Amino acid sequence: MRTGTFLYILGWFLVFFSVTLFFPGLVSYIYHEPVQPFIYSEAITLIVGVLLIFLVKPEREIGYREGFAVVVFSWLAAGIFGALPFVFSGHLGLVDALFESVSGFTTTGSTVFDSLEELPRGLHFWRALSQWLGGMGIIVLSLAILPLLGIGGMQLYQAEMPGLTKDKLTPRIQDTARILWGVYSFFTVFEVLLLLAGGLDLYEALCHAFTTMATGGFSTRTASVAAFDSAYLDYVITFFMFVAGVNFSLHYRFLKGDLGAYFKSEEFKFYLLIGLAAVFICMFFNYIYGTYSNPSLNFRYSLFQVWSIMTTTGYGTADFDLWHPACKLLLLILMFFGGMAGSTGGGVKQIRFLILFKFIRFQFRKLIHPKAVEIIRYEDKKVAESIIQAILGFMALYGLFFVVASLLVCAQGIDIITATSAVAATLNNIGPGLAMVGPTKNFGWMPDFSKLVLTFCMLAGRLELYTVAILFTRSYWRGARKPTWRF
Amino acid sequence: MRTGTFLYILGWFLVFFSVTLFFPGLVSYIYHEPVQPFIYSEAITLIVGVLLIFLVKPEREIGYREGFAVVVFSWLAAGIFGALPFVFSGHLGLVDALFESVSGFTTTGSTVFDSLEELPRGLHFWRALSQWLGGMGIIVLSLAILPLLGIGGMQLYQAEMPGLTKDKLTPRIQDTARILWGVYSFFTVFEVLLLLAGGLDLYEALCHAFTTMATGGFSTRTASVAAFDSAYLDYVITFFMFVAGVNFSLHYRFLKGDLGAYFKSEEFKFYLLIGLAAVFICMFFNYIYGTYSNPSLNFRYSLFQVWSIMTTTGYGTADFDLWHPACKLLLLILMFFGGMAGSTGGGVKQIRFLILFKFIRFQFRKLIHPKAVEIIRYEDKKVAESIIQAILGFMALYGLFFVVASLLVCAQGIDIITATSAVAATLNNIGPGLAMVGPTKNFGWMPDFSKLVLTFCMLAGRLELYTVAILFTRSYWRGARKPTWRF
Repeated sequence: MRTGTFLYILGWFLVFFSVTLFFPGLVSYIYHEPVQPFIYSEAITLIVGVLLIFLVKPEREIGYREGFAVVVFSWLAAGIFGALPFVFSGHLGLVDALFESVSGFTTTGSTVFDSLEELPRGLHFWRALSQWLGGMGIIVLSLAILPLLGIGGMQLYQAEMPGLTKDKLTPRIQDTARILWGVYSFFTVFEVLLLLAGGLDLYEALCHAFTTMATGGFSTRTASVAAFDSAYLDYVITFFMFVAGVNFSLHYRFLKGDLGAYFKSEEFKFYLLIGLAAVFICMFFNYIYGTYSNPSLNFRYSLFQVWSIMTTTGYGTADFDLWHPACKLLLLILMFFGGMAGSTGGGVKQIRFLILFKFIRFQFRKLIHPKAVEIIRYEDKKVAESIIQAILGFMALYGLFFVVASLLVCAQGIDIITATSAVAATLNNIGPGLAMVGPTKNFGWMPDFSKLVLTFCMLAGRLELYTVAILFTRSYWRGARKPTWRF
Repeated sequence: MRTGTFLYILGWFLVFFSVTLFFPGLVSYIYHEPVQPFIYSEAITLIVGVLLIFLVKPEREIGYREGFAVVVFSWLAAGIFGALPFVFSGHLGLVDALFESVSGFTTTGSTVFDSLEELPRGLHFWRALSQWLGGMGIIVLSLAILPLLGIGGMQLYQAEMPGLTKDKLTPRIQDTARILWGVYSFFTVFEVLLLLAGGLDLYEALCHAFTTMATGGFSTRTASVAAFDSAYLDYVITFFMFVAGVNFSLHYRFLKGDLGAYFKSEEFKFYLLIGLAAVFICMFFNYIYGTYSNPSLNFRYSLFQVWSIMTTTGYGTADFDLWHPACKLLLLILMFFGGMAGSTGGGVKQIRFLILFKFIRFQFRKLIHPKAVEIIRYEDKKVAESIIQAILGFMALYGLFFVVASLLVCAQGIDIITATSAVAATLNNIGPGLAMVGPTKNFGWMPDFSKLVLTFCMLAGRLELYTVAILFTRSYWRGARKPTWRF
C-alpha cells in the first residue's frame, strides 16, 4: 500500500469535488437564499485538496491495493465534505449532517429531516446532486473498477466494457467512464423533459431526475412522490427507476443500435421476472386486504413501490407499512435483490441471486446424479468456480454484516423490526424501512450511535462490502509505506 | 427408485413403531386413564405395517435413491400414526394432532395445547417418548446415513463412526446404531437419576429426561421448566441440554476412555465459544435493562435460555419475549446455529457456520493475496471444495426455505415477527418463537394452512432439507419402478 499515491489522488478528488459545490450555491443565489454555507464548504474542501496535492510526493502508479483505499476514502471524503453545507446552514448537527450526506453520496436516500418543505432550495439541490454524483461514481465503480479488484463475482463483468485490463487501474478507465456518463446524462435529461411535461418546474424536475437515475430517492417533499399525486408522474418515475436498475453497459449497447441487447442478458430477464412476480403478488394481497378501492390504483402503487424498493430508490407513493404483512415481508426481501450489477441500484444485485439459484439447482443435480459432471452456466458460458465462490462469499459476508449491524442497532433498545429494516434499508442503499423508520417516518429520532452504525452500513453496502471490510484487516496494511512529504 | 423395496421397509418400520405405542398405554393403565386410544392406534399401525409386508414383494437391496425416500417417509409415517392417540383420545383434531405428533418426532417441541396440565399422563408420556425416539433416529441419521447420501457437507463425518461405507446403506449401520443408542440411553438414565434427586417423581423425571436428551423441549407443564422454579433442576437440565447438543460420536470416544476427545474437536470448541459469548451478551443486556434483580438469577436464566434455544431444545424458564430487543434478536439468530452435527440438536448445525466463517476469511485472503494458493482447513485437514460447496448450497437452500415459508405464513395475515419466528422455531426444530408464538404462548390459534406449512418446516428442517426437497424434483422419480405385488 503506497499511502503517498493514495493521498495525492485524494487531493485531486477533493479539488474536483469542491467544484460541484458551486452548483447548489448558484441555486441558492438564484432563489435569494444565503450562499455562505456553500462558499465556506467549497473553500474548505478546495484548501484541503490543494494542501494534499502540494504536500505529498506522489509515487508513479496506482495498483491493486491502492484501488481499495481510493474507492473507500473518496466516498468517505465526499460524505464528510458534503456534510459541511448542512452544518454551516445551521440545519443539522455533525452526526446528522454526516448521515444525510453519506445517505446522498451512497444513493441511499434515508433522511433525518422531519419536514423537507422548510429546507432552502440550495440544500435540496445539493441533496439531489450528491445522489446524482454518487450514482455516476457507482456505475464506473461497478463496471470498471470492481471487476478488476476481483470483488464478489463482479469479474463476470470484466468483458462488458471496452478497454479494461487487470494490470493497471489506469488510462482506459477514463474512456469507459466517459461513455457511461454520457448514457447516464442522456437518460437524466430525458427524464427532466418528461417531468417538465408533467407540470413540475425545472428545479423540482432536476431534483427528481437526479435522484431517480441514481436510484437515490431523496425528494423535495416530505411525502415524497406521493405529494404530486399524479398518475403520469408515477409512471414516468417508475419507468426511469426501471431504467436506472439496468446495467448501463446494456443501455450503451442499445443506444449504439443493438436493439436486442437487453433480452440477450440473462440478468435482465431475471430482474424483469422477479420484479413482475413481486408486483403480481403485491397486487394480489392488496386486493384481498382491500387496500385500494380500484384496480388501477392498486396496479399503479404496487408497480411503483416494487420498483422503488427493488431498485433501492426508495421513493414513496404509498405507505407500504400499512400493507398486508406478506407484502411487507416481500418488500423486505426485495430490498436485498437490488438492481442489476452495473446499474446505480444497490443491494446484493440481481446477478448474485441468479447465480445463487443456479447454484442451489446445481447442488440438487449433484445429489441426484452423484457421478455426473455438472457445471453452472451463465449466458451459455461456464461460470468459473472461483467466481461462484466469490459470489457465495459475498452473500455470506452480506448476511454477517446484516446480522451484526442489526444487533448493534437493537442494542440501543430499538425494536427488532425497526432495527433490522433500518439496516436493510441502509445496507442496501434504499432509504425508508418499516415501523419506526417506515416510509412516512425518518431517521432523525435515532440515537447517534445507531446513526453512525447505519452510516457505516450505507458506505459498506454501496462499496460492495469487501472494499470497506478489507481495510480493517491487518494483512492489508502490512508493508504499507508512509507517504513522502515534499517539505 | 425401487418403490417395492421402500414400501416393504416402511412396513417393517410400522411394525416396530406399533410396539412403542405400548408404553404410553402402560402409563395410562397405571394411572387409571383410558387405554383405548393407545390400543386402537397400536392396532391400526400394526395392521397397516403387516399388510405392507405381506402385499409387497421386496427387491434385494436398498440403494442410494431409496435412502432418501425411506428417511422421509419413516418420519412422516411416525408423525401420521403417532398422531392417532391424540385424535382417539378426543383431545385434538386431525391437523392439530399431526402438528403435535410431527413436533414430537422431529424433536421440535412446538405445541398446540393451551394448558398442558389437563392432559392425561399417558398422552404426556407419548409426547415425551416420541421426542426421545425422534432423537434416537436423528443421531443415526446424521452420523450414519446423511454422510453417505452426501447431504450438505455431512460427508465431513464420514470417517467419524466405525464401519461406514458408501456402497450400500446396509449391514454396519446396525452396529453404529447400537453404539450410539447405548450412549444416548446412558445419558438419559443419568439425567433421570439426577432429576429424581431434585425431587421430581419418576414419571416427570422420565418425561423431562426424554425431551432434554432429544433436544425436544416438550414439558408436562404449561409453564415448562419454569414451573419447578428450582435452581438445581435448571442447572441439571442445562447440563444435559449442553450434552445433547454435542456430537454423540465424541461422547462415545470419551466414554471409551479418550478423555481429551471433546477438545480435539474444532466444532466442539466453536459450539462452546458461540454459546458462552451469547450468554455473556444476554447477561450484559439483562443487566442494563434491569430484567433480573440479582446476578445469579441473571446468570441462571441467561445460561439456560441460550442453551435451550441454541441446542434447539426450547424449554422455557424465562419469558425471553420480555428481554431487551438485542437479546431477542440474538436468540433469533442463535436458533439457526443449532447443535453440533451428530447431536440431537436441530438448526443449521455449528459445523456449517464454522466452515462458513472460515470461508469468509478465505475470500478475504484471496482478495488481499490474489496470487497465493489458499485452502480451508478443518482439524488440520484440507476441506474438499465439493464439501464447502455442499455446505454453502445447504445454507442457501435453508435461507430460501425460511423466506418462502415465512411468506406463506404471513399470507394468512400473521405479523412478520410472529411469522418469521414461527418458521425459525419449526424449521430449526426449537419449539417456541417470539410475539404471538412466544414462550408463554402456543401454536393452537394459527390457521390450519399455517400449521401445515410449519409441520412441513419441522420435517424439512429435521431431515436436512435436501432429503425432503429432492422428493419434489422430477429427475428423482424418473425411472421409478412400480412395486411388485404378491397377489
